[in-house]
Amino acid sequence: MELPALNNQQKRVIIVGAGFAGIRLAKKLSSRYFQVILVDKHNYHQFQPLLYQVATSGLEPSSISFPLRKIFQSYAHVFMRITEVLSVDTGNHEVTTSAGTLPYDYLVLAYGATTNYFGNANLQKHAYAMKSVAEALLLRNTLLRQLEDALTVSSDEERMALLNVVVVGGGPTGVELAGTLVEMKNTILPKDYTELNFKQMRIILLEASPKLLGAMSAESGEKVAGYLKQMGVEVLTGVAVKDFDGQAVSLSDGSIIRSKCLIWAAGVKGFSLPGIPAPSLATNERILVNTYNEVKDMPNVFALGDIALMQTDAYQRGHPQVAPVAIQQATLLAQNLKNILENKPMKPFVYNDQGSMATVGKNKAVVEIGNLKLGGFFAWLIWMAVHLMSIVGVKNRIFVFLNWVWHYFTHDPSLRLMIKPSERKN
Amino acid sequence: MELPALNNQQKRVIIVGAGFAGIRLAKKLSSRYFQVILVDKHNYHQFQPLLYQVATSGLEPSSISFPLRKIFQSYAHVFMRITEVLSVDTGNHEVTTSAGTLPYDYLVLAYGATTNYFGNANLQKHAYAMKSVAEALLLRNTLLRQLEDALTVSSDEERMALLNVVVVGGGPTGVELAGTLVEMKNTILPKDYTELNFKQMRIILLEASPKLLGAMSAESGEKVAGYLKQMGVEVLTGVAVKDFDGQAVSLSDGSIIRSKCLIWAAGVKGFSLPGIPAPSLATNERILVNTYNEVKDMPNVFALGDIALMQTDAYQRGHPQVAPVAIQQATLLAQNLKNILENKPMKPFVYNDQGSMATVGKNKAVVEIGNLKLGGFFAWLIWMAVHLMSIVGVKNRIFVFLNWVWHYFTHDPSLRLMIKPSERKN
Repeated sequence: MELPALNNQQKRVIIVGAGFAGIRLAKKLSSRYFQVILVDKHNYHQFQPLLYQVATSGLEPSSISFPLRKIFQSYAHVFMRITEVLSVDTGNHEVTTSAGTLPYDYLVLAYGATTNYFGNANLQKHAYAMKSVAEALLLRNTLLRQLEDALTVSSDEERMALLNVVVVGGGPTGVELAGTLVEMKNTILPKDYTELNFKQMRIILLEASPKLLGAMSAESGEKVAGYLKQMGVEVLTGVAVKDFDGQAVSLSDGSIIRSKCLIWAAGVKGFSLPGIPAPSLATNERILVNTYNEVKDMPNVFALGDIALMQTDAYQRGHPQVAPVAIQQATLLAQNLKNILENKPMKPFVYNDQGSMATVGKNKAVVEIGNLKLGGFFAWLIWMAVHLMSIVGVKNRIFVFLNWVWHYFTHDPSLRLMIKPSERKN
Repeated sequence: MELPALNNQQKRVIIVGAGFAGIRLAKKLSSRYFQVILVDKHNYHQFQPLLYQVATSGLEPSSISFPLRKIFQSYAHVFMRITEVLSVDTGNHEVTTSAGTLPYDYLVLAYGATTNYFGNANLQKHAYAMKSVAEALLLRNTLLRQLEDALTVSSDEERMALLNVVVVGGGPTGVELAGTLVEMKNTILPKDYTELNFKQMRIILLEASPKLLGAMSAESGEKVAGYLKQMGVEVLTGVAVKDFDGQAVSLSDGSIIRSKCLIWAAGVKGFSLPGIPAPSLATNERILVNTYNEVKDMPNVFALGDIALMQTDAYQRGHPQVAPVAIQQATLLAQNLKNILENKPMKPFVYNDQGSMATVGKNKAVVEIGNLKLGGFFAWLIWMAVHLMSIVGVKNRIFVFLNWVWHYFTHDPSLRLMIKPSERKN
């Protein structure tokens, strides 16, 4: 397909994926030295940390999605193609997309991670994931549809299967989801559905390891488990999911929970593209990179963020798959690509860990920054401030903030809408 | 399916459709005398007059949609079933839905109108309609997708077919759509798509009759046509669409316009349900009612709003299919149903016409109230105030207002997002 001509001595960098890494790198590179072609399936950047609020009718998709073309309106050397990348050809220096072939000088793979069902086909078929706005919307529509269906079934057993929600995975996403769902059960849902008995609704959080928030301290994990139990979540640790057929969840301890809605937030993995050689991939399909984010055995190809696996002394199993790693790697790669052009040596990546956090609900969060451990209201304020400032776009920040204020005082953002576009035509 | 028990002497009213008429009637009836069962396919009320702003990425669907359960939280005698009505059985006094059968004492049909393609199957298959949030979202996604595709096709002919938009129907919807699209062409699109030449994009408004805004004065129609032409819309009156195959539009004057996007806003019609006898229907499938909104040949069944056809001396072809008629009919029917219970006579419907209006774009509108005719900035302010106050929900009003303010100053509400939920699972 046609691309804008390169300036004199300008190199073309194709970036696959407009997540935190892709956006940062494109912004930093755009110059008379680099033409950037940013390729993504979607025409927007999605702010994944707040997907759980979209799924629970707390925020609109548009509040955490930002049009790529708007982000780059003032970047003269960034161009976009909204299409799917089908394969990579390092020999010919090109990638093939659904809309045609694109030649590159440098290729940067920053297409993120996908849900890891650990090979369980039933889970993949029946469980709800939450890695994209599209999946979060499906989950929202499903949760609302099941409440409506609970009004029209005839047996209590069927009704409980429609009301119970099982969240699998005790990381931040699982904790935040379970907390928000139980808040809805305690506040708004009994007002919306006066005919239902919400004592029949169970919110269950399952974690296979012995503690919640594995990436944080034991203290924070216990604090969060305490918050959740107090709000009414059944927290089960040391229990794994054996199977799920869309009607009931079988657990490793032999018990069975009737539920039509199992939300799988128990792990992510990488995924490959045709043309990436097998030795460049780790067992979980993340792409192996050196400390300069260069992909093993693929000249002039780099990988950043969740998809990249960089093994160092400090991080022998790779860095955490979070936004700060992606952003820091992208910032460094922009500098390193300039260094290559200028025949200077590249700098190796060193992760600057700024801490981690998770929220459970109104006034409740945990934050760890270095040795500092915070909980409760103050941690919750920090959580909100950090997330608000990380959202792309002033208007989105204002709208998310207004939604949060409205939510805080009413428990009711009025977004419990089952909306779906009509079927595509021509 | 199970329904809440009736109080002593309480009558059950089933209302099909949660549009302007259904909502108003349910609110007015809820009492110890009437139990209301409101049935709709969607769990939200949609504010149709602003659908065109959803389609053109100016407003979010949630800003003009309001959860039904929230509307009726404080109405103890209103209950909802989110399901599709399949048939009516006046003999047994019940309606059958996808979720089971519902018995009624009184049945009120208020399910609105549908797009009228006047029997042209090609138009039905290929043209985009705009009668629902779902259709508006499909149109938004299509308009954005076509701009992306215009970057990757190889010939100017293909590119023009992707850029050209043909709007059919010179009523308020067509006028408002054409005006908004040409504003986008003139302001935000060239910033988003620096690689495209927007001189290749045509916005064409077709109207089969000799003038725009047929329901208003010739003066207002001419004023609006002037506004549109000045902004860059090609306004063609007295020309009808003969056919559309998804690639090109054939007109009655023999000419052909290449375009993949034809928006059909040229007419609405009623539609029937199994169980409604043929003599109860007019030729355009609207339901025939007397001046009390009682359906012809269907005892204890009423019809309101767009679906009802009430022929009076003043309105021999029925009332205009607009919100004020629906709301006024619903208000009167609530009173008349109480009159029936109290053995008082019913009152006949007399339409209080409050005027009509249409906007074309920033600072441009026409308003007619009785003999008063306004245009320009002041009319535009009235248009905004009337629409803002008609939207359900304080939060929605605030969010729509903020969006409009943002839009006014930036021409860019940052909502050009192609979002679609994932495919349904269990």
